[in-house]
Amino acid sequence: MDVSSTSLDLTPLESVLPEGCLITDPARTDKYRWDRALDPNAGVPMAVVRATCTADVQAAVSFAAARGIAVVPRGAGTGLSGGASAVTDCIVICTERMRSIEIDPLTRTAVVEPGLLNAEVKRAVAAHGLWYPPDPSSYEICSIGGNVATNAGGLCCVKYGVTTDYVLGMTVVLADGSAVKLGGKRIKDVAGLPLLKLFVGSEGTLGIVTEVILRLLPAPRTPTTLVATFASLDDATRAVLEVTQSMRPSMLEFMDNVSINAVEDVTKMGLDRSAEALLVAQSDEADSTAAAEIIRIESLCEANNAAEVLVAPDAETGEAFVAARRMAIPAVERRGTLLLEDVGVPVPHLGGLVRGIADISRANDVEIAVIAHAGDGNTHPLIVFDPMDADQGRRAQAAYGEIMTLAIGLGGTITGEHGVGRLKRPWLGANIGDDALALNRRIKQALDPAGILNPGSGL
Amino acid sequence: MDVSSTSLDLTPLESVLPEGCLITDPARTDKYRWDRALDPNAGVPMAVVRATCTADVQAAVSFAAARGIAVVPRGAGTGLSGGASAVTDCIVICTERMRSIEIDPLTRTAVVEPGLLNAEVKRAVAAHGLWYPPDPSSYEICSIGGNVATNAGGLCCVKYGVTTDYVLGMTVVLADGSAVKLGGKRIKDVAGLPLLKLFVGSEGTLGIVTEVILRLLPAPRTPTTLVATFASLDDATRAVLEVTQSMRPSMLEFMDNVSINAVEDVTKMGLDRSAEALLVAQSDEADSTAAAEIIRIESLCEANNAAEVLVAPDAETGEAFVAARRMAIPAVERRGTLLLEDVGVPVPHLGGLVRGIADISRANDVEIAVIAHAGDGNTHPLIVFDPMDADQGRRAQAAYGEIMTLAIGLGGTITGEHGVGRLKRPWLGANIGDDALALNRRIKQALDPAGILNPGSGL
Ligand SMILES: Cc1cc2nc3c(=O)[nH]c(=O)nc-3n(C[C@H](O)[C@H](O)[C@H](O)COP(=O)(O)OP(=O)(O)OC[C@H]3O[C@@H](n4cnc5c(N)ncnc54)[C@H](O)[C@@H]3O)c2cc1C
Ligand SMILES: Cc1cc2nc3c(=O)[nH]c(=O)nc-3n(C[C@H](O)[C@H](O)[C@H](O)COP(=O)(O)OP(=O)(O)OC[C@H]3O[C@@H](n4cnc5c(N)ncnc54)[C@H](O)[C@@H]3O)c2cc1C
Repeated sequence: MDVSSTSLDLTPLESVLPEGCLITDPARTDKYRWDRALDPNAGVPMAVVRATCTADVQAAVSFAAARGIAVVPRGAGTGLSGGASAVTDCIVICTERMRSIEIDPLTRTAVVEPGLLNAEVKRAVAAHGLWYPPDPSSYEICSIGGNVATNAGGLCCVKYGVTTDYVLGMTVVLADGSAVKLGGKRIKDVAGLPLLKLFVGSEGTLGIVTEVILRLLPAPRTPTTLVATFASLDDATRAVLEVTQSMRPSMLEFMDNVSINAVEDVTKMGLDRSAEALLVAQSDEADSTAAAEIIRIESLCEANNAAEVLVAPDAETGEAFVAARRMAIPAVERRGTLLLEDVGVPVPHLGGLVRGIADISRANDVEIAVIAHAGDGNTHPLIVFDPMDADQGRRAQAAYGEIMTLAIGLGGTITGEHGVGRLKRPWLGANIGDDALALNRRIKQALDPAGILNPGSGL
Repeated sequence: MDVSSTSLDLTPLESVLPEGCLITDPARTDKYRWDRALDPNAGVPMAVVRATCTADVQAAVSFAAARGIAVVPRGAGTGLSGGASAVTDCIVICTERMRSIEIDPLTRTAVVEPGLLNAEVKRAVAAHGLWYPPDPSSYEICSIGGNVATNAGGLCCVKYGVTTDYVLGMTVVLADGSAVKLGGKRIKDVAGLPLLKLFVGSEGTLGIVTEVILRLLPAPRTPTTLVATFASLDDATRAVLEVTQSMRPSMLEFMDNVSINAVEDVTKMGLDRSAEALLVAQSDEADSTAAAEIIRIESLCEANNAAEVLVAPDAETGEAFVAARRMAIPAVERRGTLLLEDVGVPVPHLGGLVRGIADISRANDVEIAVIAHAGDGNTHPLIVFDPMDADQGRRAQAAYGEIMTLAIGLGGTITGEHGVGRLKRPWLGANIGDDALALNRRIKQALDPAGILNPGSGL
């Protein structure tokens, strides 16, 4: 640890923050070092600011800006790319105490502080007959600020879009500590550059979001759920392609054999352990239309040699299959430590991607489970390894890079929804091109010339 | 006209462009001076480049960049805020000859050159059973590049969103003449900053879009149309609010008494000339759901004292009412020259906005017709004046400013979909705040430090 900075006088900051906001005791700051990527290279922060309001965030950023100290914004720490992992001697600014919500049913909007969890937003607006669609699998544990910072996706985005589609306004604290309000409770607004859209998905590299205005929809209908298993992977991905070409299910998820078995180990719900692939699809259209959509998906699965197709007889059974899909990451996690990918490809390449990943798994002799938001071509290969086995760890790392290179080669992306963070940064240039990377850096330079916001992450 | 620059040697540019691309004859360049805002202060370009490909655009921008010459990007020139009007001694780069389209039904995307008209895109993809939703009223005459540059809206965006929701990728020529590709045929992609979103709606101030990858949907269902007239404006806006609070019609348009009469003058279709307001609503849900939605809208209109509610008996009748609404701008245009507004407010303030506009009309003694994408709170007050009557022109100008100030006061925007252009620029700071304006300028400075791209427009 850098001695000069640990001896830095934090009292000017402490004195402007509410009691208990600033913590420096390593026993208490330790849990703010990692997000769910558990980056072994995470640094040790000099302090954590548990902000209670925009002014607290401004105070912390101003203090850091004046001294050239790195700032790492942090929501609930469920990120999977090391974007919220600490940098040594940084100040972590955590939003976990900023949890207010104001719902405005007339405009169908909610003004939300960033620390509220996604599930809490959903529940609060549901009480008004409203719906906040974005639903990352982590919705019970991730913050809305983190969702905005990563432009989080989820299961319903195949029909309802991602976080950016629901952000109408925000307050954001810039690298100099000033706070700017962007947008408002207006559905359409093109006054000036679309800065709001620039901040959504900027992974804490351009500013810290301290308030969001979310657009809400009327409550959704209860969906109808279909589950199909396939003996052949290619049949399953072909079924996905035929569905996405002609219709818009409200969910279209995929699990491979490894994930099916991992989930079955935990749930004992009777999944077919021999299946190469399982699809979960939903329609949220009204009665007869939903039935027609589900029949169509059923026939496309059958035409592609599905081993079994089951239409859930009721909402509870349907929800159980969705819960099984959501449980895939924690279930696979029981088999070892995970390196979690988030590669995406144009949907016609889904089959090629999943097959290529199986090759990479064999070549590197590491287990890789694949789950996917299949309708969007967005997959999550989960590389399983034993952290005590150094050689396996190296092979897992090799596979991690090879999968990203594979996706890039298929016209894909290294990250569909989790963000670049610290872990995927070495591949960003190869993905978007050096010219686009240079353009990223020019924007960063314009908004954070000293580079204090989340250095080493995102771009 | 500046003598030094008219004597500028254009042969280095002419020599690298295909035959006939560069025009300088004032008789031919004249029509590239104005967009549909007909700004009397439009300048005189030194040349117009009718580009045929990305390389032509790059050549023209490089030439201009090396000499500090202003560049004005231009699509079809249907813009309503003076964003495409020429600057004296600029080079206008027009995309009208860049008209290719490649449709990929497997990924449900189309790769389109910017000069293709919106309606041509719609027709081309419809031949594959696909749908490109954004539908500005000008869809038969505006270019897709112009739509992307302004983030164009339209009638269906109340349910299907605006242009930015359908842009998956683009090629953009930057201020130094380099071309960058952003995004691709991937539905979800968060690798790096969301630069793609930054360029959509940037009004030609950050780069020139030379290719777009559009996301398509499966063909829509035939909609069911409802028309309602109201003796009282307040009743109509209250009906709008009650509809938007609880459901998602695929269209919810508004016309006031002046526009009803202007359209009736042209169409003689039998509209109620005494009505203070007319609403056109659509549902594009499947059969029984559409019927249920329309019944619900009907009952909300009736509960708010609608004078008459008519459900179109067939698609043709429905289309006739939508065409009537689309015709409002040209119909009102017959009564004089128009100053066209595009102010938007949170939907609950729609009534207050329309009433305030009536006050402004009276106070300034100028006729103002109001049409609106009511479900989005986005209105188009059309200020009618006689260009030969200087005093009336001044009163129209005064009203133009007062309407924007009114909208800002109601928590609204000076532009919901047409863009800031040259004409609304004086009000941008008051709208978004000086701090947000400064942030706009920092981005502009980072991407176009010499300020050659569309100077004086947008921000
Ligand atoms: C089991 C599991 C399943 C998951 N499934 C999904 C999924 O389906 N879809 C999906 O998109 N993600 C998923 N994730 C990843 C993660 O939950 C999301 O990225 C989420 O948006 C992160 O929110 P957070 O509050 O935990 O953010 P953190 O992890 O704390 O931070 C994430 C990033 O955002 C920045 N940040 C956080 N808050 C702010 C702020 N207020 N202002 C500026 N920057 C900020 C951080 O610096 C960091 O770069 C999953 C994670 C887990 C563990
Ligand atoms: C009758 C009528 C009805 C209308 N209704 C609507 C409506 O419902 N919704 C709506 O949104 N608009 C509407 N408009 C406005 C207008 O049609 C839109 O703004 C449209 O998007 C402009 O497209 P264009 O090709 O005509 O662009 P232009 O007018 O040529 O240019 C518009 C702006 O985009 C820039 N630009 C154009 N092409 C490019 C490019 N390739 N790269 C970078 N910058 C570029 C220009 O510099 C300018 O700033 C209407 C206009 C009329 C005349």
